[in-house]
Amino acid sequence: MLPSQLQTLISQFTRLPGIGPRQAARFAFYLLRNEGEISSLANTLKSVDESIKLCENCFLPSYDSPACTICLSPTRDKNTICVVEKETDALNFEKTGQFQGHYFVLGGFIDPLNKESVAHERLNLLVKKTEQTQEPVELILALTPRREGDFTSLYIEEQLKPLKEQGVKIKTTRLGRGLSSGAELEYADEETLKNALEGRK
Amino acid sequence: MLPSQLQTLISQFTRLPGIGPRQAARFAFYLLRNEGEISSLANTLKSVDESIKLCENCFLPSYDSPACTICLSPTRDKNTICVVEKETDALNFEKTGQFQGHYFVLGGFIDPLNKESVAHERLNLLVKKTEQTQEPVELILALTPRREGDFTSLYIEEQLKPLKEQGVKIKTTRLGRGLSSGAELEYADEETLKNALEGRK
Amino acid sequence: MLPSQLQTLISQFTRLPGIGPRQAARFAFYLLRNEGEISSLANTLKSVDESIKLCENCFLPSYDSPACTICLSPTRDKNTICVVEKETDALNFEKTGQFQGHYFVLGGFIDPLNKESVAHERLNLLVKKTEQTQEPVELILALTPRREGDFTSLYIEEQLKPLKEQGVKIKTTRLGRGLSSGAELEYADEETLKNALEGRK
Amino acid sequence: MLPSQLQTLISQFTRLPGIGPRQAARFAFYLLRNEGEISSLANTLKSVDESIKLCENCFLPSYDSPACTICLSPTRDKNTICVVEKETDALNFEKTGQFQGHYFVLGGFIDPLNKESVAHERLNLLVKKTEQTQEPVELILALTPRREGDFTSLYIEEQLKPLKEQGVKIKTTRLGRGLSSGAELEYADEETLKNALEGRK
Repeated sequence: MLPSQLQTLISQFTRLPGIGPRQAARFAFYLLRNEGEISSLANTLKSVDESIKLCENCFLPSYDSPACTICLSPTRDKNTICVVEKETDALNFEKTGQFQGHYFVLGGFIDPLNKESVAHERLNLLVKKTEQTQEPVELILALTPRREGDFTSLYIEEQLKPLKEQGVKIKTTRLGRGLSSGAELEYADEETLKNALEGRK
Repeated sequence: MLPSQLQTLISQFTRLPGIGPRQAARFAFYLLRNEGEISSLANTLKSVDESIKLCENCFLPSYDSPACTICLSPTRDKNTICVVEKETDALNFEKTGQFQGHYFVLGGFIDPLNKESVAHERLNLLVKKTEQTQEPVELILALTPRREGDFTSLYIEEQLKPLKEQGVKIKTTRLGRGLSSGAELEYADEETLKNALEGRK
Repeated sequence: MLPSQLQTLISQFTRLPGIGPRQAARFAFYLLRNEGEISSLANTLKSVDESIKLCENCFLPSYDSPACTICLSPTRDKNTICVVEKETDALNFEKTGQFQGHYFVLGGFIDPLNKESVAHERLNLLVKKTEQTQEPVELILALTPRREGDFTSLYIEEQLKPLKEQGVKIKTTRLGRGLSSGAELEYADEETLKNALEGRK
Repeated sequence: MLPSQLQTLISQFTRLPGIGPRQAARFAFYLLRNEGEISSLANTLKSVDESIKLCENCFLPSYDSPACTICLSPTRDKNTICVVEKETDALNFEKTGQFQGHYFVLGGFIDPLNKESVAHERLNLLVKKTEQTQEPVELILALTPRREGDFTSLYIEEQLKPLKEQGVKIKTTRLGRGLSSGAELEYADEETLKNALEGRK
């Protein structure tokens, strides 16, 4: 019933993270109903496509330059690197105003069955870069405390072991565990309660 | 921290129905991370913008023609018109394969405080079009059985009253009420239980 | 860590429908913390145990009498019987004030694999009772429009077929189907939309 | 429609934490339908009422004795006291097997507007008891990291200040903060991310 161009648009919207066919259709009809929205969105996309690249160091977006503003900033500590799964995690740490180091965006978790993934590729780059460092480096493995995040942290530590044995000064740390703000004590798991008791202060 | 073009894109995504800033950012980063996605989406949007219009009769999308395929079809009954709030409602009725009439997309509910709305404008068109009809017409007011939908149905009936008094052969009907498939009897409201008892067969 | 009597109480609470161990523990501690609550609940339970029976006709609760107030009422039509899965369904129909017949509580759905269930037993009683009737009877199969409810309705109709063939005047009906009040048209399934279109008025 | 004893039972069930009228009715009908359940529950309640008291020290339940098994245990450290809002919090800490001290159940949060509350009364007892101690005591304020819990912790520290100034050796600690197991980094608030960064190891 729908013209094929519209069906193409809807199916392209379903590739966006978290979007099913129903909501993709709603997007398309919203754009059709509101004059000017389609061409405005198309133009913004073109402009992003032409001017935004991913930073060579950390893979955060960067405007018209091979490195992002954080990596270019002279006041930030390039030897404390917060390794995150995705770009929005870095944005969230930035919001706290507490972190003055660099980031490194893996672009996903490490999947042991898929050695071709973006995360694998980027991790190889990180290992190579770290190998050449002279000063002591801290990698904060800021990955979500779930199975995939924990596996990815373990995997990264595994990859860095040979470097440590060669004398490269790398330290890996993980985020502190305990009760999140607003957490209900009642629904906290045993692991979290243990961490909260041990980490009391 | 983000380049301004990217911020523009993210804020444009938040105008899509149901999308907040967090998910909008995820869309943008997904597109940046996957080569070719941005330009492909931009191109599809351009092509939709150039070739798709809204049907003059019913406001469903139509390809390169002032009327949509349903309105152009010789096998469909133009005197049974299913009035819906939005395009996806029409798609859902089409999926049942049970409806062989035309549609009319209001593009929203009638808001008594906003006479400039798309729905008001389109309703005026519908009333005019109905006025000129010679044959008997049925308008199925297929609006969601909630406050806004019920109000909109009442309002439409109100607008058609003078026409009926002038002898125009219009009948308005509403969707049958009762238990939905899969509904839990336990959570059914009194109104629904009444309808279900009365409509038993 | 908990005294065994308390553990017994908690595990008895977990038998109540919908109650897990966490909430059962909360019940027990609530009662312990509020003086007088335990003995007051125990007394009410004793009093219910002594005075409340299930009605011989319909299995709704009845006070100090073999039949409930509905079955005893001279103004209610004993030949229109609303067959429900559970007691609260009957209460909900009563709230509508629209039903003036009798009820029959099955006490569950019919499970074809378990012929010993309460529902099987009660259904046998219903069939026997209906067999002896002289006047025309309507059984409203008011079961939830899901797989188990639909199967139970079919099964009951199956059991009544021989009686109909013997000339007993039984009619079975089912609740009307369509859109529930407050239902979102957008999430309605095809079956419901079909029913809603067919049942329009 | 329901006999009054049954209505009394249902309304008593609605006093249980988290139970509305619908579920209370389901409890009552479940008990009526299953022979022996009512009298069995009534008997368990009587037996709990007669044999279970609240421990004089910590307000956990205790069997036939003024003190609970934890307070009576010679292997547990009476100078490390975990102050919790409710009994189930203590049970959860017990499950971790990591805590070898005593508990103190406040029975609620401190409400500054209601000085007559159970929590106020019990806190006064705790302060008095702590006043007389000779050995150094640690109070772990294990209260949920929300507004009410944080306020209660502050209030307790306030009450203990004069004792500290008099030279009583009391230390108060709070549970460690950070990411809970299984938490999504994406939904962590700034406070939690700050704590997680600071507490990295």
